[in-house]
Amino acid sequence: MSTQSSNSVISVTGSRRNLPDAPLLAAARGHEPKHRPIWFMRQAGRSLPEYRKVRAGIGMLDACFTPELVCEVTMQPVRRHGVDAAILFSDIVVPLKAAGIDLDIVAGTGPVVAEPVRTAADVAAFPTLRAEQLAPVARAVSLLVEELGSTPLIGFAGAPFTLASYLVEGGPSRNHERTKALMYSDPQTWHALLGRIADSTITFLTAQIDAGVDAVQLFDSWAGALSLADYREFVLPHSARVLDAVGSAGVPRIHFGVGTGELLGAMGEAGADVVGVDWRVSLESAAKRVGPGKALQGNLDPAVLFAGPTAVAREVAKVLADGEAARRAGAIGHIVNLGHGVLPDTDPEVLTHVVELVHNS
Amino acid sequence: MSTQSSNSVISVTGSRRNLPDAPLLAAARGHEPKHRPIWFMRQAGRSLPEYRKVRAGIGMLDACFTPELVCEVTMQPVRRHGVDAAILFSDIVVPLKAAGIDLDIVAGTGPVVAEPVRTAADVAAFPTLRAEQLAPVARAVSLLVEELGSTPLIGFAGAPFTLASYLVEGGPSRNHERTKALMYSDPQTWHALLGRIADSTITFLTAQIDAGVDAVQLFDSWAGALSLADYREFVLPHSARVLDAVGSAGVPRIHFGVGTGELLGAMGEAGADVVGVDWRVSLESAAKRVGPGKALQGNLDPAVLFAGPTAVAREVAKVLADGEAARRAGAIGHIVNLGHGVLPDTDPEVLTHVVELVHNS
Repeated sequence: MSTQSSNSVISVTGSRRNLPDAPLLAAARGHEPKHRPIWFMRQAGRSLPEYRKVRAGIGMLDACFTPELVCEVTMQPVRRHGVDAAILFSDIVVPLKAAGIDLDIVAGTGPVVAEPVRTAADVAAFPTLRAEQLAPVARAVSLLVEELGSTPLIGFAGAPFTLASYLVEGGPSRNHERTKALMYSDPQTWHALLGRIADSTITFLTAQIDAGVDAVQLFDSWAGALSLADYREFVLPHSARVLDAVGSAGVPRIHFGVGTGELLGAMGEAGADVVGVDWRVSLESAAKRVGPGKALQGNLDPAVLFAGPTAVAREVAKVLADGEAARRAGAIGHIVNLGHGVLPDTDPEVLTHVVELVHNS
Repeated sequence: MSTQSSNSVISVTGSRRNLPDAPLLAAARGHEPKHRPIWFMRQAGRSLPEYRKVRAGIGMLDACFTPELVCEVTMQPVRRHGVDAAILFSDIVVPLKAAGIDLDIVAGTGPVVAEPVRTAADVAAFPTLRAEQLAPVARAVSLLVEELGSTPLIGFAGAPFTLASYLVEGGPSRNHERTKALMYSDPQTWHALLGRIADSTITFLTAQIDAGVDAVQLFDSWAGALSLADYREFVLPHSARVLDAVGSAGVPRIHFGVGTGELLGAMGEAGADVVGVDWRVSLESAAKRVGPGKALQGNLDPAVLFAGPTAVAREVAKVLADGEAARRAGAIGHIVNLGHGVLPDTDPEVLTHVVELVHNS
């Protein structure tokens, strides 16, 4: 870990460390980074043999509530790839589990909620998350801030729509039909539910910020299933409340969803400092949709990492050039990332190589 | 069936019947239909109890090659809902199976290809589909044309990219990583493969047209996984060759994919007379993206059908109004449909009600 530490560039403002030289934070804030920053969504995970080793025999949610294990798993890709940020190892259902909702993450399926939330009575009974229920997560953040040295730590939460989909469907859903049925048929219950989830999300992110994360990413994984009109009416107000509530800490707020080409402007309006973009939309086009004054994150197709070194080098170069075009179109910075999470079968050496390509560009 | 027949509006030009009063064909050709036409993707299928009954114990591919069963299943939603078109009951892998490729459709999984196609040698060995291998499909079309009376029959095929994904991955894939890896790493083999698939697709659609279908729909289910630049380079030329090859018959060509907001203009350029649109993009916006002179098809979210009668009526009215806006924005016609296929748990009575709402509008 000592290779990651460089105390010369760390200063502490109040209880928060300050990392003025960290490329990720510079890019997010519109400053000139010393190199183009890069990290990978799902960089801590199944693509790494060292991850599979430490997770062996330990359930996903048990892992998320074990601070030392969270710290180790979060550090693994930083050590291996030299990425410009760690992202807290967690899961979007962690705040729901912490609040006492009966759910589990089933290997090969995803989160399964024992009692789906579908009625006004279900929403009324929705438990309020308390900060003290997040003590293991806060402890993991504290351990990480100490261990990471000058590498920023990104905190993370699922956005209200995506969490609502898991809660209403009772598990992962391709078409979100029960979720949308509630949204279209009973807007009052819908908004009450998203309000309760937003409360939890604010508590979850605030706990991470209080413990020392340097940025946060709000994942709205499924928002791309909505039209812009429905996103604006049923989702944006709740995501905006979350992003606003965590804004006072001054940590950059990244907002990402997949298949959100139609929604990028609205997701920026929701209060993101950095808007995540998938590979379906060029960064230059995204900059125009989002409007000036925000940074962008993305957008290499994770499938490119399976195409061999020539294709990888060519596609990385395209993303870098596209990031420049986005800057000219009004984006204040570019954080290189994939357009979605690392696929489990990805060769980790390819990830390391991509980091080198970006840093040497 | 006799209720479907109305010989007064059928005339035959050469070997092809002519249905000048059929609302679907009028809308596709820019004429004024007597009412707004509607049909549903996957209208013949698991949402119907009469379908589940006749399919019991019969494998999907066996069903697709049994003309009398294809005819019965294709007729069921026409009888029940009074939709403005039948769509040939088939599957996108039918031409591959007919050509002798070892594959099966596994319930709960989808098509599984025994020997995935991944190398230049695999492509060289790719079998050429011959029209006579499609005799059961042609026979089914003949039976249907006789039975349908004045209701048009839509023929159907999968587009080269989507078929390539099944062939390269060996089955359904969420991320298409092997497919894209081939595309990015070996464009020559990629284009050779898509050329061979396009040949099969042309043979498949031509057999249906020769047997009497009144329109065709080319499904590129997975094209939405591509950026516009990649779609243009790796996919569009092959889809365009298919649509061009079947154009001389004069039957309207519908082209659809899901999540294709970025691609709508290019999919129109590929040679579609009618561009299918999902619910993520308004029909008015789609009309601007596609440009004038084409009809649009869509775009009710299939999840709306789970939201109860008030929401269904409201959302259907929105689609109808959006279709009018699309006409003002340059679309020459609007065929009402879902933005994706009927979900299996859909209540068929809701589908019938949607048809009534559209016809009475």
